[in-house]
Amino acid sequence: MKSTSLNTQLLINGDRLNQTISRLAEIGKLPDGGVKRIAYSQEDIVARNLVQNWMQEAGMTIKIDPAGNIIGRYPGKYPEAPALATGSHIDTVPCGGYYDGTYGVLAGIEIARVFRENHIFPNHPFEVIVFTDEEGSMIGSKAISGRVIKDPNYYRRPDGTDIFSCLEKIGGNWDNIAQARRSSKDIAAFVELHVEQGPILESMGKQIGVVEGIVGQRRFNITVKGSANHAGTTPMHLRKDALVAAAKVVLAVNQIGNTPGQQVATVGKMQLLPNAANVVPGWVEMSLDIRDLSSLHIDSLLQQLRLHLEEIAVETNTQIRLNPALHNEPALAEDYIQNAIAKVSEDVQLSYTYLPSRASHDAQELAQITDMGMIFVPSELGVSHSASEYTSPQQCIDGANVLLRTLLRLDATKSPTNHMPSGIL
Amino acid sequence: MKSTSLNTQLLINGDRLNQTISRLAEIGKLPDGGVKRIAYSQEDIVARNLVQNWMQEAGMTIKIDPAGNIIGRYPGKYPEAPALATGSHIDTVPCGGYYDGTYGVLAGIEIARVFRENHIFPNHPFEVIVFTDEEGSMIGSKAISGRVIKDPNYYRRPDGTDIFSCLEKIGGNWDNIAQARRSSKDIAAFVELHVEQGPILESMGKQIGVVEGIVGQRRFNITVKGSANHAGTTPMHLRKDALVAAAKVVLAVNQIGNTPGQQVATVGKMQLLPNAANVVPGWVEMSLDIRDLSSLHIDSLLQQLRLHLEEIAVETNTQIRLNPALHNEPALAEDYIQNAIAKVSEDVQLSYTYLPSRASHDAQELAQITDMGMIFVPSELGVSHSASEYTSPQQCIDGANVLLRTLLRLDATKSPTNHMPSGIL
Repeated sequence: MKSTSLNTQLLINGDRLNQTISRLAEIGKLPDGGVKRIAYSQEDIVARNLVQNWMQEAGMTIKIDPAGNIIGRYPGKYPEAPALATGSHIDTVPCGGYYDGTYGVLAGIEIARVFRENHIFPNHPFEVIVFTDEEGSMIGSKAISGRVIKDPNYYRRPDGTDIFSCLEKIGGNWDNIAQARRSSKDIAAFVELHVEQGPILESMGKQIGVVEGIVGQRRFNITVKGSANHAGTTPMHLRKDALVAAAKVVLAVNQIGNTPGQQVATVGKMQLLPNAANVVPGWVEMSLDIRDLSSLHIDSLLQQLRLHLEEIAVETNTQIRLNPALHNEPALAEDYIQNAIAKVSEDVQLSYTYLPSRASHDAQELAQITDMGMIFVPSELGVSHSASEYTSPQQCIDGANVLLRTLLRLDATKSPTNHMPSGIL
Repeated sequence: MKSTSLNTQLLINGDRLNQTISRLAEIGKLPDGGVKRIAYSQEDIVARNLVQNWMQEAGMTIKIDPAGNIIGRYPGKYPEAPALATGSHIDTVPCGGYYDGTYGVLAGIEIARVFRENHIFPNHPFEVIVFTDEEGSMIGSKAISGRVIKDPNYYRRPDGTDIFSCLEKIGGNWDNIAQARRSSKDIAAFVELHVEQGPILESMGKQIGVVEGIVGQRRFNITVKGSANHAGTTPMHLRKDALVAAAKVVLAVNQIGNTPGQQVATVGKMQLLPNAANVVPGWVEMSLDIRDLSSLHIDSLLQQLRLHLEEIAVETNTQIRLNPALHNEPALAEDYIQNAIAKVSEDVQLSYTYLPSRASHDAQELAQITDMGMIFVPSELGVSHSASEYTSPQQCIDGANVLLRTLLRLDATKSPTNHMPSGIL
């Protein structure tokens, strides 16, 4: 085994990493250049097999847990120590790109290859985890955090397929899914490398994103009840126009989103009734999606919004209701992991910035059971979930090197017999 | 023939009028108390036959013109004089009430009955016209104004039935429809009596509405092009949110509607793309409906709105287009007919107010060819096109008396050999 001082000069093989990214994108490739590799599909299974081959070639042993997660494990110097883990997913949205998820998995495998060819054994075992169905139910990472919903019907696929047969296809087993749960006793820390899927790094000209956490998300269904009436014969002052009220709600939400802070707030969906050119709208239903790293901040914004909605209801003579539809708490990245990523970026002379992840990631589930960190690389024009998703080969290499060195830094500073951070970074 | 001084004491038979309203409502009555008597339907044909019987009993001769309009004619003292005409329609919306259209027709027939039983022959022949398909194409009154569209496909029914067979069923003939056209040479004036279908008379506590004209209507399709983006990863300041822009448009339209004046302005219809809770809306399409008695005023409001839309587009980084979809010019009621209605209302001690009609009526087509006036009676709560449409028996009687006396006043003041108003009222 080489010394830590040597390890810090270690770099991944960039060409090899990028070749595997291109190779995996062949599986499920669409005519427009996008990739369709839906979880549990034939394409997903082919890709899972290829990834397992690559893991084995990189010297990893493989375990499929009951949730179908692929856990590739590279041995550590202290086999009983909790693992340092990375990973992501290789399933895609129906028309996805090359990088979302895949990049984090393949960078992890590349790191194992580098360990193997340099005869490096870190103190902690090193794991690369391929999480099941990130783009859908996130059942893989939820099984690891012990947060799978008990009702199997919840996991039925849009095409009607049940979760039993889905998991069976990929080597999992619904009945034993509780056994997939892990804890900080066997994962000392989890660091996920991912494309940003947003425009911030590119717009700031930064190479690396040190993720502060994955934002909490609340979703609501807002209903506005007015009174449908003839758009000709009903004078303006006698109207209860649900759309006028809804328009004020949209602007109130936008105003909340634009107050100082890192929150985003969106009305993305709206339906009117009766939705006819010659009828004053009597009913509007719309979505509200609000995200921030701080749950308290979201609470405070929602409190402001509620007051605003009450005023709008009075002003417009309508009834407005805010009905909760989703509540995800923020998942914060550990400070010491953020610091490690930042210092490693400085070491390798890559510019970086701190930013929240406003999209969901498997890392948010891992944060429930262990110390979590995330590294972002830029997405061209912020585009994702699209055939035109793009991160350059060099950007892919940079992120993988930061992941490699962050893991080595954590390995060196975390005690293999005590998973708490040493505090000396 | 009785003298004019006697005629001014004349009243309609209120019970008889209200009985015919109830009787006609039996044809097409729905379980909820509403009425379904769609143009050209079996119910419409049964009702048309009943109305023709009543016309004949009232001493009228009947003609069906090529558009299927029923023209009942009561003889005047000067048979060659242009007629004084009233009328409306007996077809209904799919779930209509007792009064919309029907009331005006039956009040006209009641007036003929009063003439007949009092041996009155006005100077001008008196016509009651039942216009074809007012609730749909308005083909009846448009044929009389010579504004039928030449392409028969335009008049195809929603169920696919062609206009040829529809007109044939009711005694009309598409091929000769141009011959239905009339002019001021044979209709000296047209006065329509109708329920208001709006809340103004009731809210002002007035018994009679002197209609100033039927508002002009412009309809537009407004499109907003923004940029669809991830509602999580796209920071607020980098968004081109088409719904935020659309909300500002809705409020700008509402503001235009609420400036001093009698206009109404409505966004009744809106569609979003992609319309998903987690996507910033990239595209919004909406309707704009704006109505006023003055075309110049509409132009000026639209000019204000256009400036506002340009500002909104710049503010929100979106593209906004205003595409014309419909353009109906206002149809003004003649001052001398408005005066006649007002003075008659004073004579019979009924309170009245001037107001525009913001709904369409056959009278707007008649205004294209002759002098037009309209009388409104209150609609309870302003409700119309509904089973709960209601105007009380006394209100029906009041309106019919005002129509009777207005026609007598016009008959006395208009020269039967010169259809221009005498100016002496």
